[in-house]
Amino acid sequence: MSIVVVGSVGIDTIETPFGREERVLGGSASYFSLAACNFTDIHMVSSVGEDFPREYYDLLVLKGINTEGVAEEKGETFRWEGKYDYDMKDPETVSVTLGVLGSFDPIVPKNLRGADYLFLANTAPEVQMKVLEQMSSPRIVACDTMNFWIENRPDKLKELLAKVHVLIINDSEARQLSEESMMAKAAKKIIDMGPEFLIVKRGEYGALLFSREELFFAPSYMLERVLDPTGAGDTFAGGFMGYMASHSEKPNFASFKKAVAYGSVLASFTVENFSVKGLCSLGEEQIEQRYREFLKLLAI
Amino acid sequence: MSIVVVGSVGIDTIETPFGREERVLGGSASYFSLAACNFTDIHMVSSVGEDFPREYYDLLVLKGINTEGVAEEKGETFRWEGKYDYDMKDPETVSVTLGVLGSFDPIVPKNLRGADYLFLANTAPEVQMKVLEQMSSPRIVACDTMNFWIENRPDKLKELLAKVHVLIINDSEARQLSEESMMAKAAKKIIDMGPEFLIVKRGEYGALLFSREELFFAPSYMLERVLDPTGAGDTFAGGFMGYMASHSEKPNFASFKKAVAYGSVLASFTVENFSVKGLCSLGEEQIEQRYREFLKLLAI
Repeated sequence: MSIVVVGSVGIDTIETPFGREERVLGGSASYFSLAACNFTDIHMVSSVGEDFPREYYDLLVLKGINTEGVAEEKGETFRWEGKYDYDMKDPETVSVTLGVLGSFDPIVPKNLRGADYLFLANTAPEVQMKVLEQMSSPRIVACDTMNFWIENRPDKLKELLAKVHVLIINDSEARQLSEESMMAKAAKKIIDMGPEFLIVKRGEYGALLFSREELFFAPSYMLERVLDPTGAGDTFAGGFMGYMASHSEKPNFASFKKAVAYGSVLASFTVENFSVKGLCSLGEEQIEQRYREFLKLLAI
Repeated sequence: MSIVVVGSVGIDTIETPFGREERVLGGSASYFSLAACNFTDIHMVSSVGEDFPREYYDLLVLKGINTEGVAEEKGETFRWEGKYDYDMKDPETVSVTLGVLGSFDPIVPKNLRGADYLFLANTAPEVQMKVLEQMSSPRIVACDTMNFWIENRPDKLKELLAKVHVLIINDSEARQLSEESMMAKAAKKIIDMGPEFLIVKRGEYGALLFSREELFFAPSYMLERVLDPTGAGDTFAGGFMGYMASHSEKPNFASFKKAVAYGSVLASFTVENFSVKGLCSLGEEQIEQRYREFLKLLAI
């Protein structure tokens, strides 16, 4: 089954203690799609400016990603420059140019509105809702959000959460959204808001998958180097949704657990290299090998 | 098989955002023993002052703990007052009185020197070494240490590490000891220093078990409340060693994984209540039930 992802496509400049890369491909929809394309058909809905490099289109298309829903608008592509310290968390934003994303009003092409899987990457909840309303009846809708929307659009966000199946956020966002410090309580409150499943990303500590009744504790794949953590969360979501869309006739907790494992595996390739480089040359055998190693981490 | 633990016994005053308890039983050997006693015979080697409350002896003895090696010296018992903030990590030390622990020179009673399992709780590495030298030939020696000894006694610590089988430390200590930021590399370097097994405690994120060839990622049991994190690490070590001593004829990675799981389970009872309260009324059925729930967290 195919996936529609609505999110950003951008041009990043990233500095970490281990290097600097200028004007590389970035954006939530890019990372998500380059992960999900390993499993199933993926359709991007986004917006870029006239300056968007041809080679980045080519890269996406070469990986079989459908970019028909990426509108080219007058103006600049979204640009972000970020700098990471040694902790490799919470980058400092050196500069940001919203460009065409400043007026992003996503239109899902008509032929994609019947897709079974929809991922709403982080953006204003009212924009996410507008996308959701364009779809006919997706089987699984997952979304991301961030502290800014939790603080500034709590009502709109809660309207959206009542309509999604899966929320994928990090642990501080889960605490903030629920106003609970203990994750077990936070998860219950969030599931009461609507999503049947909650995935809490915890960076190097892995991820937690909650349903109302069940819990799974996914490790992160153990790496010897991390060069650039940018896009890890969106890659995780792409691996997760990609696995679900390609393997799960009847989504249940068991298939969600495997999907979370694939999300972790895909994210491990992203952070090993700058920008989307770690995802570009990835093949099925590499993914499966890391998945098998991942299972070993859990075997008791 | 029986265990000898050498560590502190003290009187704590603990304040967290959720309450305050004064003059309660504390110390690494207390937590360790109250966890390990659920599995096997446990012998404490420590030192207390003349002021050590009779009721705390009674509590330990009631749980079947052998306190013959706890010397009562002239002077005060070790006292610590700590205060936790909402993050429930890294307590501020409000006051500390070393008392008789200031001149702690542990003597292992002769009849205990043949014990098969030895746990060296956190103290100066030269003191840990002196204890080790008193033992005839323990099958498994595990030890803890802390940042202060890593910084101030690196050579003594390395002499000790060459002689222990298991090192149990937290993640920042593992990074500091190895001078590596990535845990996969840190673990390799530490195992090169001597210990066959390294356990890295990560608080609410669980624990990692490393051997030279293998890796296990243990979750932490998911709690709805944490009242007092004091003693979690020593409880973990007690559950771990207790399981090993009672179940493992030939220690291997498979038995170490189960032991780590029991360590996590025992620690979860400690942090749910102040001081050692969570361990005092614990029975086999409660432990086994939590262990089964722990396994579910990992099942994929």
